[in-house]
Amino acid sequence: MTSAATTPGARSEFDRDTAVAPAEDGSLTAELSEKWGVGPGLNGGYQLAVVGNAIRAALPAQPDPLVLSAYFLSPAAPGPATVDVTPRRMGRTATVAADLRQGDDVRLTVLATYGDLDTESGDVHTTALPPSLAPLEECVPNTQAPAELRSLVTVMERFDMRFDPACAGWFAGQPSGRGEMAAWFRFADDREPDPVSLLLVLDALPPVTFDLGRPGWAPTMELTAHVRAKPAPGWLRVRHTTRNAAGHLFEEDCEIWDSADRLVAQSRQLARLPR
Amino acid sequence: MTSAATTPGARSEFDRDTAVAPAEDGSLTAELSEKWGVGPGLNGGYQLAVVGNAIRAALPAQPDPLVLSAYFLSPAAPGPATVDVTPRRMGRTATVAADLRQGDDVRLTVLATYGDLDTESGDVHTTALPPSLAPLEECVPNTQAPAELRSLVTVMERFDMRFDPACAGWFAGQPSGRGEMAAWFRFADDREPDPVSLLLVLDALPPVTFDLGRPGWAPTMELTAHVRAKPAPGWLRVRHTTRNAAGHLFEEDCEIWDSADRLVAQSRQLARLPR
Repeated sequence: MTSAATTPGARSEFDRDTAVAPAEDGSLTAELSEKWGVGPGLNGGYQLAVVGNAIRAALPAQPDPLVLSAYFLSPAAPGPATVDVTPRRMGRTATVAADLRQGDDVRLTVLATYGDLDTESGDVHTTALPPSLAPLEECVPNTQAPAELRSLVTVMERFDMRFDPACAGWFAGQPSGRGEMAAWFRFADDREPDPVSLLLVLDALPPVTFDLGRPGWAPTMELTAHVRAKPAPGWLRVRHTTRNAAGHLFEEDCEIWDSADRLVAQSRQLARLPR
Repeated sequence: MTSAATTPGARSEFDRDTAVAPAEDGSLTAELSEKWGVGPGLNGGYQLAVVGNAIRAALPAQPDPLVLSAYFLSPAAPGPATVDVTPRRMGRTATVAADLRQGDDVRLTVLATYGDLDTESGDVHTTALPPSLAPLEECVPNTQAPAELRSLVTVMERFDMRFDPACAGWFAGQPSGRGEMAAWFRFADDREPDPVSLLLVLDALPPVTFDLGRPGWAPTMELTAHVRAKPAPGWLRVRHTTRNAAGHLFEEDCEIWDSADRLVAQSRQLARLPR
């Protein structure tokens, strides 16, 4: 395993594959990599991170996403893409609109407010409790996921995920039926988390519908992410739940806790149930 | 009390004050009423409903909001407003961008996907349980809210709200500290709920921070609403919670249950803690 964290000068997979460059027309260009694939498409969280990185590049004084809402309009594919960032209100925080395009097609349209998480420190009155995951060594690594899933979902190879056994029954065709998924998480090359990478982590686990006995693609209609603090280095704990699968749609909530026991990011998405 | 539901030909306060009319330039015009006020500004849910109604008017084949994300850019005031609706993807569902403007200022910028909730019926596998509210007659009506609050927050007069005593201690200066608020809800003139009016109901109760002992204005940065079913007539049950008040910000989750025990709408917002 290469280690981006420990090899001087090494660039992580995440940084390389979410990099953006300014174009002459004021937009930003990116090269979407097939390494973050889900079937013929690309992981939604990866697309969020590319857009999130482009917005960061466009906003030197507001480096961190505070909240970002993405509407998925068409399936992205590996290859060139552009991101247009349009300021909507600039101040201590900045609100922008952004589109991720490939050719004439918009993949994602986004609204987001960025700021500086260092100035949003303040008191913490969290009543939420971190998910109680089994110890790392008792969890099920993603390398034990079904082979047909791993070959289809290349994005899984980018991560070191350790699934809590209580909601990993779907690995062996025995979902809990509760609609929950929880795992320890880090990048496979040890790249440490930061606010933009949390946008990816919020949509990196398999859909929570796997635990409802409904495996398969669950296309996201909309996802809103709140990033609440800079994550401490080390393992993240990620938990997904759904409470309302109804009418062909389900909501999926995600929370991410860092190694310092801080709730660093939350998201909710509305997605289509697998057929 | 006038009854919009029972008086033939009567138009409810909600319908009158969220009405939109087409303008020559393709936008829609509205007249924001001071009756939905919070201090010198206007209730955020009321603004959502005006925009939601304008989007509905622009989309004859997709009558219902499925998901709507709003970013609040500047405080709205009573008076004329315009809503511009821009199609982003049209199909069985429609995704649009919309701005609520007053003069040169954008109040709200929105992304939304609309569809037909009648075609999104399907199976219901909700594991969520309705909030266990005390019976109506044991709850605290909004007419018993502190007088200084009622005179400041005129929007409260539009509603018949019955607060569950377990989280109504703030009426008498004794908040529970749990960060919860729950109430029976209907319009004061008995106007029955529908999908667009749920956008208002999701942000109609006082901020959940009242129950944390932090009364005062809690300006919304962003709110995303999911509307999951057409509400049955009658009383709604509305529950707000927060779990992560940290760094000057807090998230506020809301769910709305109808008289048929269906979870008809959910929202999450990111807001600034009162000073």
